[in-house]
Amino acid sequence: MKNVVVGIDVGGTNTVYGIVDKDGNIYGEGSIPTQAYQNFEDWSEALHKSIDDKMKELGNEFAIYGIGMGAPNGNYYSGCIEDAVNLNWNGKQNVVTTFKSLFGEDKLVVLTNDANAAAVGEMVYGGAKGMKDFIVITLGTGLGSGVVVNHQVVYGLDGNAGELGHIIFERNGRMCGCGRRGCLETYVSATGIKRTVFDLLANENVPSELRGLSFEEVTSEKIYKAAQKDDQIALMAFEETGKRLGMALADFAAFSTPEAFFLFGGLAKSGDYILEPTKRYMEENLCFIYKDKIKVLLSELNDKNAAVLGAAALAWAELN
Amino acid sequence: MKNVVVGIDVGGTNTVYGIVDKDGNIYGEGSIPTQAYQNFEDWSEALHKSIDDKMKELGNEFAIYGIGMGAPNGNYYSGCIEDAVNLNWNGKQNVVTTFKSLFGEDKLVVLTNDANAAAVGEMVYGGAKGMKDFIVITLGTGLGSGVVVNHQVVYGLDGNAGELGHIIFERNGRMCGCGRRGCLETYVSATGIKRTVFDLLANENVPSELRGLSFEEVTSEKIYKAAQKDDQIALMAFEETGKRLGMALADFAAFSTPEAFFLFGGLAKSGDYILEPTKRYMEENLCFIYKDKIKVLLSELNDKNAAVLGAAALAWAELN
Repeated sequence: MKNVVVGIDVGGTNTVYGIVDKDGNIYGEGSIPTQAYQNFEDWSEALHKSIDDKMKELGNEFAIYGIGMGAPNGNYYSGCIEDAVNLNWNGKQNVVTTFKSLFGEDKLVVLTNDANAAAVGEMVYGGAKGMKDFIVITLGTGLGSGVVVNHQVVYGLDGNAGELGHIIFERNGRMCGCGRRGCLETYVSATGIKRTVFDLLANENVPSELRGLSFEEVTSEKIYKAAQKDDQIALMAFEETGKRLGMALADFAAFSTPEAFFLFGGLAKSGDYILEPTKRYMEENLCFIYKDKIKVLLSELNDKNAAVLGAAALAWAELN
Repeated sequence: MKNVVVGIDVGGTNTVYGIVDKDGNIYGEGSIPTQAYQNFEDWSEALHKSIDDKMKELGNEFAIYGIGMGAPNGNYYSGCIEDAVNLNWNGKQNVVTTFKSLFGEDKLVVLTNDANAAAVGEMVYGGAKGMKDFIVITLGTGLGSGVVVNHQVVYGLDGNAGELGHIIFERNGRMCGCGRRGCLETYVSATGIKRTVFDLLANENVPSELRGLSFEEVTSEKIYKAAQKDDQIALMAFEETGKRLGMALADFAAFSTPEAFFLFGGLAKSGDYILEPTKRYMEENLCFIYKDKIKVLLSELNDKNAAVLGAAALAWAELN
């Protein structure tokens, strides 16, 4: 009998899962369309059925030991998804209670937000193995973060710690989805770099293939592709985004002085276009006591299975 | 036989110590003038002699179990005081090796910086008893901090974590002793509020008793006394300082979401003059997920023995 956990990554569009052993081997994968379910109960049951079918397909040799889930606004302490704006269901939805009743009361069910799951994944299966202190920065639609101090994820008072995307980068700056202005994620994220492109299009005079696209049409992938063709606006946007991220990381260093920052998610796939200016500006802005010590790395889980592995790692970390 | 530890607080002017039991009772106290010793060895020997004499005075019933020291630039990991600018000796001075050779190799000797010692003191003897996550902000000449996450002081990669005074509050702002511009401590500290007073004297037209004093003459105590007499400049300086600290605490909340912030040290003795605006602006600036949850409190160790108790608590915490 092989013990496995189910690692579940809840996205606004799809919910993806994998059947994962302790060493990070994935024996089966599946997904259901998150958006197709209007309420939490229907989604939970459909997900349970899909996993159940997958387990039958795999045969009798596998036993589910626990379930780990990374979800937007997933709260580790309460076990609930709380007011996730990108999901169809509102309010507090109790993942732990619901999935225990579906899979069995004896199963471990553990929930956290997607960035914390990424941090646990990096710690268990990725580049942060053996690191005592590190921070994962997820650069997707927003900027998420998972902070690890003394080998433990920092959850704080109520499970909402490590929201570095909502540290104010510029007072009275860009409007943020949280209702305030100037949050870091309005500058540094897939959406942030797009806003920076439009700022540059407004303020600079150089030609750019991005001048032909509307705000709705521009994506961070298109900016990356333009940068690869030496598009000046795209290159300036990466420089500016890396500068802002580097300045922010220099501040974060004074908080927990991590051994490394890991960049994860869509924008991190731009590789050196984002990594190089981030490192350079971080070093330039660090207080002298922190200089030449702190690494900035791309996540070693930067592929399609990363979020699933992170969620699985969360369950395994709890089971150990 | 009563087991005690020696709690030592190293200041630029005086080195103060206390003989402290597990419950925080102080059986004897003493001090030597730090400035009188030109090198680290002479200071160490004088301190050892003073403690030794004090122990003889107390009699045979007390046994030294360990030594805890809080010192400027005291590094928990290396056991060294490293390049402390306010002390007579330069470079790395190994406290652990030196004091073990003076007091006995079997004695525990533990060193940290003054702000971390204050945090441990707050945790063991003060208002943070039982709190999992909290942050102590020390408001002296500079702004120091001790960050506690999951009941542990955050030391980071190399013992220098938790220097929140060197997070940039305003880009290209006031010149800081660290060589950069705009660090939080240039605005929020005993020195910071004095700089703010001079900024206000330059920019406002209201009368103030502080107009008769030079930059060298003004102290945070004099600003406090002026505020108690409703001096408009002094009141505005406290409002402005609390505003900046409140805005900074709102950012720190997104990092580790502490149960409480504790204000400690000289400027914290101004009580509500600093506490009230800090609380108000923190709440106003917090991201909605953190509102109405986080306390801002005055340290319960805000008296003359606090630093000694903190250093003693550090040794006791390590011995447990």
